[in-house]
Amino acid sequence: MTSIDVPDGSLFGLDNLPYGVFSPPGEERRVGVRVGDHVVDLAAALGDDVFARPTLNGFMAQGHRRWREVRDRVTALVSGSVPDAAVFPVSGVELHLPVTVGDYVDFYASEHHASNLGRLFRPDAEPLLPNWKHLPVGYHGRAGTVVVSGTDVVRPCGQRKAPDEIQPTFGESRRLDIEAELGFLVGSGSAQGSPVPVEQFPERVFGAVLVNDWSARDIQAWEYVPLGPFLGKSFATSVSPWVVPMDALRAARVSTPPQEPRPLPYLREADPWGLDIDLTVEWNGEIVSRPPYREMYWSPAQMLAHLTVNGAATRTGDLYASGTVSGPERSQCGAFIELTWGGREPIVVAGEERTFLRDGDEVALSATAPGAAGGRIGFGEVRTRIAPANHPGR
Amino acid sequence: MTSIDVPDGSLFGLDNLPYGVFSPPGEERRVGVRVGDHVVDLAAALGDDVFARPTLNGFMAQGHRRWREVRDRVTALVSGSVPDAAVFPVSGVELHLPVTVGDYVDFYASEHHASNLGRLFRPDAEPLLPNWKHLPVGYHGRAGTVVVSGTDVVRPCGQRKAPDEIQPTFGESRRLDIEAELGFLVGSGSAQGSPVPVEQFPERVFGAVLVNDWSARDIQAWEYVPLGPFLGKSFATSVSPWVVPMDALRAARVSTPPQEPRPLPYLREADPWGLDIDLTVEWNGEIVSRPPYREMYWSPAQMLAHLTVNGAATRTGDLYASGTVSGPERSQCGAFIELTWGGREPIVVAGEERTFLRDGDEVALSATAPGAAGGRIGFGEVRTRIAPANHPGR
Repeated sequence: MTSIDVPDGSLFGLDNLPYGVFSPPGEERRVGVRVGDHVVDLAAALGDDVFARPTLNGFMAQGHRRWREVRDRVTALVSGSVPDAAVFPVSGVELHLPVTVGDYVDFYASEHHASNLGRLFRPDAEPLLPNWKHLPVGYHGRAGTVVVSGTDVVRPCGQRKAPDEIQPTFGESRRLDIEAELGFLVGSGSAQGSPVPVEQFPERVFGAVLVNDWSARDIQAWEYVPLGPFLGKSFATSVSPWVVPMDALRAARVSTPPQEPRPLPYLREADPWGLDIDLTVEWNGEIVSRPPYREMYWSPAQMLAHLTVNGAATRTGDLYASGTVSGPERSQCGAFIELTWGGREPIVVAGEERTFLRDGDEVALSATAPGAAGGRIGFGEVRTRIAPANHPGR
Repeated sequence: MTSIDVPDGSLFGLDNLPYGVFSPPGEERRVGVRVGDHVVDLAAALGDDVFARPTLNGFMAQGHRRWREVRDRVTALVSGSVPDAAVFPVSGVELHLPVTVGDYVDFYASEHHASNLGRLFRPDAEPLLPNWKHLPVGYHGRAGTVVVSGTDVVRPCGQRKAPDEIQPTFGESRRLDIEAELGFLVGSGSAQGSPVPVEQFPERVFGAVLVNDWSARDIQAWEYVPLGPFLGKSFATSVSPWVVPMDALRAARVSTPPQEPRPLPYLREADPWGLDIDLTVEWNGEIVSRPPYREMYWSPAQMLAHLTVNGAATRTGDLYASGTVSGPERSQCGAFIELTWGGREPIVVAGEERTFLRDGDEVALSATAPGAAGGRIGFGEVRTRIAPANHPGR
């Protein structure tokens, strides 16, 4: 038996306990919980086969009472002694995509980001469109290209047309960008024809991950009217390997910014709450932005209520992301298109003037939040290297 | 042993042989092939467990050589005698959603439809946007709400704002519409970072289904800027239970309309081919439109090449639909918003003036194409009843 040591100041103390899927070298994938710098193999520690699977979906589908019960059992377990065979150093295992994603929806819930993008994409119009303060604007992304941190992203090719060009051309994206976001994973699905009211959020949503919603701005700008972003986004979306349970984020709850005009009844919460999560964007080892999640206009519960108000079903593993997290300051923006104002105002990264991503660049998103024990809890990171395009001349 | 009788003029002769998933009363789902008015249980007839599963995905993932081999075996089998226990009258079985859908993409490949919608949604602008003739415009829909023919569609609720209203209101959609489309099912998936060239279409695409992409026009009109349709579409998409193999559609190949300007190289086919499929839209038993698929501007292979040119992976079960099939004539339009010109020019259905759908209405899409034997082959139908909204007052 082992007593797991949690280093002082660890972001993975007993008030966090995020779930992930890992494999020791040469072995099968299974579900684990991170504690300090270790991973606890839950199938081995709890003797429950639902954790011997290669994704979290089976456990997530068991519902919120079961999530609470397992969290209590894991807390008791790792506070005492854990069987040696169930404990692995996190540095010695491989981390995998934690869920099979059902549908992937991306919202647009930061007023600062939506206003910035409006100014950049539609310079002659009002930055916020008329619907923005009435509903959480969102759209469906590609679930089949969600990948885990550590997976290289290949620079996409596609059609691009700059405003001063007469014809579109084909080639590699010249404006490859990030979007730093928070994503929510549905645990208990809901039936077709049955909207999920805002107050049902705790029963439905299992946990949160960090999301990097890669965006090829030149492809997106040419294709996105009238049906929205498609190939400018669908090549890859990266997520963190650790799913932070919503219960671990209770201490991070804060009120959303004031919502004016008052939302329609189906979007009203007694006390709409967001999350006091500090994100960090690191570009080639240098911190270039610190997006504050607490600035997000629409709450996680409002996004889910909106997503289902038309009767759309949800399934275990559905992922909905917040959209880019941007604060009011330039240094709080979660996308390079905002940080560099459309590429017109480069920033200095590691001594070089930079706008969009180059091949070989590495981006790491990370995030922390207040934990229940008075310190902070972490999301781990989404770290990605940009690989060169495969078929640039095609 | 039974010799299956195919009635004269049947749309399900030996040159069709579509696949589906069925269950006899009280029994498990399994894969079958339709022949005349019968279904042949393939697990029972061929003794292969891949057909004993509740979806076609396992078989579809086996690849195009295997699809050809099974089609040859089934043709030989049903030309002779089939074990009695493997044959069921189609009227005595239940038909199910034939595949687990991976990602669902909806294109917008009819020039007539895109021009009509442009005139209706953006009356003060050019109907076709600048990108339309350069790329197949498309977007991701909700895979988790794809349902099979026979499943009621519950009228969605949501936010709507007519142009003359100051504030949006919440309630049931007042402009519930259909979109008659053809959908293509990916059999052999492709890896992330590996585009699928146009010439690889036959190796990748297993077959085609009819699709009704339900659309709440009032919800859609208010929400769709700038990220595209979301709740106006995500409540339901209905498909036919029979998947017509692409091999059965060889005799239906026709050239696409001329493509001018010439597409970029990745979209060029030696001889771009569409399909000479006649769709029929029946509203409460009366035929109200006959959309011709041969009018579609972008070919099925071009849509798949575009969808993947940025390196997006595809998976077995991915569904991509053509977008509404509309011909040049009003009576060839595949959506009621076009047939009734935005609801301003009602049509007479069963003696009544009608614009959009009422509760209790029934819509049936069907389609036929030339078959290899000189007659016609059928897709079966997508038949749906509109059920009243669940929470109209919320």
